[in-house]
Amino acid sequence: MTSARRSVEEHERHVASLLHTLRAGSTAQVSLSHALHRTLAETVVSPLDLPSFRNSQMDGYAVRATEIADAPVTLPVQGVVAAGDGETRLEPGHVLKIMTGAPIPEGADAVVPVEHTREAGPGRVTVEQGVFAGTYVREAGSDVRAGDMLVPAGTVLGARHIAALAAVGAISVPVRARPRVAVISTGSELVPAGDALAPGKIFNSNGPALAASAQANGADIVVIDHCHDDPDEFVTMLGHAVEVADVVFTSGGVSQGDFEVVKDTLQPLGGEFVSVAMQPGGPQGTAVYGGVPILTFPGNPVSALVSFEVFARPSLREAAGLPPVTRKTVPLTTGVTSVAGKRQFLRGRLDENGVTPFHGHGSHLVAGLAAADVLLDIPADTTSLEAGELVKVVTL
Amino acid sequence: MTSARRSVEEHERHVASLLHTLRAGSTAQVSLSHALHRTLAETVVSPLDLPSFRNSQMDGYAVRATEIADAPVTLPVQGVVAAGDGETRLEPGHVLKIMTGAPIPEGADAVVPVEHTREAGPGRVTVEQGVFAGTYVREAGSDVRAGDMLVPAGTVLGARHIAALAAVGAISVPVRARPRVAVISTGSELVPAGDALAPGKIFNSNGPALAASAQANGADIVVIDHCHDDPDEFVTMLGHAVEVADVVFTSGGVSQGDFEVVKDTLQPLGGEFVSVAMQPGGPQGTAVYGGVPILTFPGNPVSALVSFEVFARPSLREAAGLPPVTRKTVPLTTGVTSVAGKRQFLRGRLDENGVTPFHGHGSHLVAGLAAADVLLDIPADTTSLEAGELVKVVTL
Repeated sequence: MTSARRSVEEHERHVASLLHTLRAGSTAQVSLSHALHRTLAETVVSPLDLPSFRNSQMDGYAVRATEIADAPVTLPVQGVVAAGDGETRLEPGHVLKIMTGAPIPEGADAVVPVEHTREAGPGRVTVEQGVFAGTYVREAGSDVRAGDMLVPAGTVLGARHIAALAAVGAISVPVRARPRVAVISTGSELVPAGDALAPGKIFNSNGPALAASAQANGADIVVIDHCHDDPDEFVTMLGHAVEVADVVFTSGGVSQGDFEVVKDTLQPLGGEFVSVAMQPGGPQGTAVYGGVPILTFPGNPVSALVSFEVFARPSLREAAGLPPVTRKTVPLTTGVTSVAGKRQFLRGRLDENGVTPFHGHGSHLVAGLAAADVLLDIPADTTSLEAGELVKVVTL
Repeated sequence: MTSARRSVEEHERHVASLLHTLRAGSTAQVSLSHALHRTLAETVVSPLDLPSFRNSQMDGYAVRATEIADAPVTLPVQGVVAAGDGETRLEPGHVLKIMTGAPIPEGADAVVPVEHTREAGPGRVTVEQGVFAGTYVREAGSDVRAGDMLVPAGTVLGARHIAALAAVGAISVPVRARPRVAVISTGSELVPAGDALAPGKIFNSNGPALAASAQANGADIVVIDHCHDDPDEFVTMLGHAVEVADVVFTSGGVSQGDFEVVKDTLQPLGGEFVSVAMQPGGPQGTAVYGGVPILTFPGNPVSALVSFEVFARPSLREAAGLPPVTRKTVPLTTGVTSVAGKRQFLRGRLDENGVTPFHGHGSHLVAGLAAADVLLDIPADTTSLEAGELVKVVTL
């Protein structure tokens, strides 16, 4: 049986439509100590003025500027105001020793830094330079006013945003929920790491790799299962997965063989299995099971990861509120040839001279994938490109 | 008392020397499922050939190429070889139906894709096109040979590296250990989020912000404490911190005031407290306590974070095996002025036109820090720069 044919662009639209509800995203409230690298779901406005009270920018003496206009002037020291102290009042004709961050006493209007003073006997200080009113005084609200925007929705929170949110007393913040992802790798040839490799068997790399890919793009991995080529086992696993996941990714079982567990199970239930005009990653499928979207990727490790990059990654990132995948246009360092009618995603390495594609198109070449840092995106109607010609690359 | 003066470069060297053992790093063995974004500590060589056996690249028929040279040729189908099956042998004059990934039967030397065949009655198939020996056969070791380098030391592991490591059966991998960081913010004016703000008090933002900064640069936060301006409390907290941390960062208590808990405690124990020619972040200190290096940052939130960026971040990233901080040289969109003799770290935003510094140098402006995405690094001997002149920026 030959599958329906689709362009990459058509399948992208189909998948995007299927993942519509996922992409809309949802909101979670997390404590500020767990908010690093999460995406703010709603704009946070400051609930208070910052600073919330007038305070000293320096260690020095709180003064009335007019009283020291004829500096040097020697005045009695009324006392000391430390950071954390409550309200005080500066008596006329006095100064108050003051620490950085301490509240400016009522009556004072400037701070003279300690470097511009000298002690003048017990309880007295000589101010050596006059200052303007307001000098080294941080006015209440001079940083942020209550009601001002502090951090806009959509910000991926870094330490500097955490600093601002902590400064206004935020305990928790609304962030985009991480999409919950289930990964089911299929194939009777797969064995888990730690088992002996019997003849004909291979280690399961799609499970760990798809889970890591989803996690790197903002997802929580809630299921990671391996299924033999057994439809009953697959249906049972899928049933469990859709109870806890927002989206399911499968690998394997979607091609033209006799034992295509994913296709054989989901096609009768309305799943669509198509041949997408791309290399690697041609056999693709989608389904909805228990109300949950399922993307079914081919089983070759490179095909599975390229499929994830092309079809799943953009929607996952949007769901998690992460910025879109970076795309650049760069020159080729060597020529490439490509199959007519198929969009090629070649593995390559980017440096200051441009992008160098790897030789060997085989979709099983995981070593080449590991050494790559970009995918080259060669349009379907292109059959050859010379060194120096421009290609689009997607950062892995 | 005036502190000793130091250039930024001198203090950088001093801190780098103090953090020498931290920067040397150590190694942890983590399961592959927890290896995403960790830095590989040792080069991993493949323990096996990939593929580990000759296998089919297509769903189709395993053949002897010479037997179908005069295609179309109709031959009996000896049976089916699925992925995961063990070794088989192709009888002369027959074909074996074969699935992608299944072992090539002994005697076969090529695979004809199912698309180039048609059924020819029960148990017989017509091969419509001849193929060269080797067609659609993946030779053992054609991806990686046992002993070949798979992923080099120093790689920050992404999904594609996890794929390669899983494909060779790796259960766990050696990664750079995360430096264990303790954060102690000091100051009697600080209250935790959730408490009421009494007059003169502020919310503790340095604790959460320094912890997030360290975490974002590869560290594990093992202590996050707040200390009042009480030397006994500080010594107790520090004692606990150095039992579990590789490095301690403090904020506050290092300036010229009367109640400098960090300086007053550590200076008599050999701590060095200096005035670094920079803005913000002039007052800096270092100490060793219980054999553990301590970096003491000033208490203003912007000063603390800029101090972390300049002095702690490079060593932390090196310890965790992360790539160095990104620095660029870009044009200014507007002129800036700067204080002679102090290296300025201005907050600004980068876009395609260059970098726009924020107005207001105040070290308490956390809102401006939150809105910034770069620090502008203005040399100490520069007092003004025109729009269009180039400045170095550090990505936050």
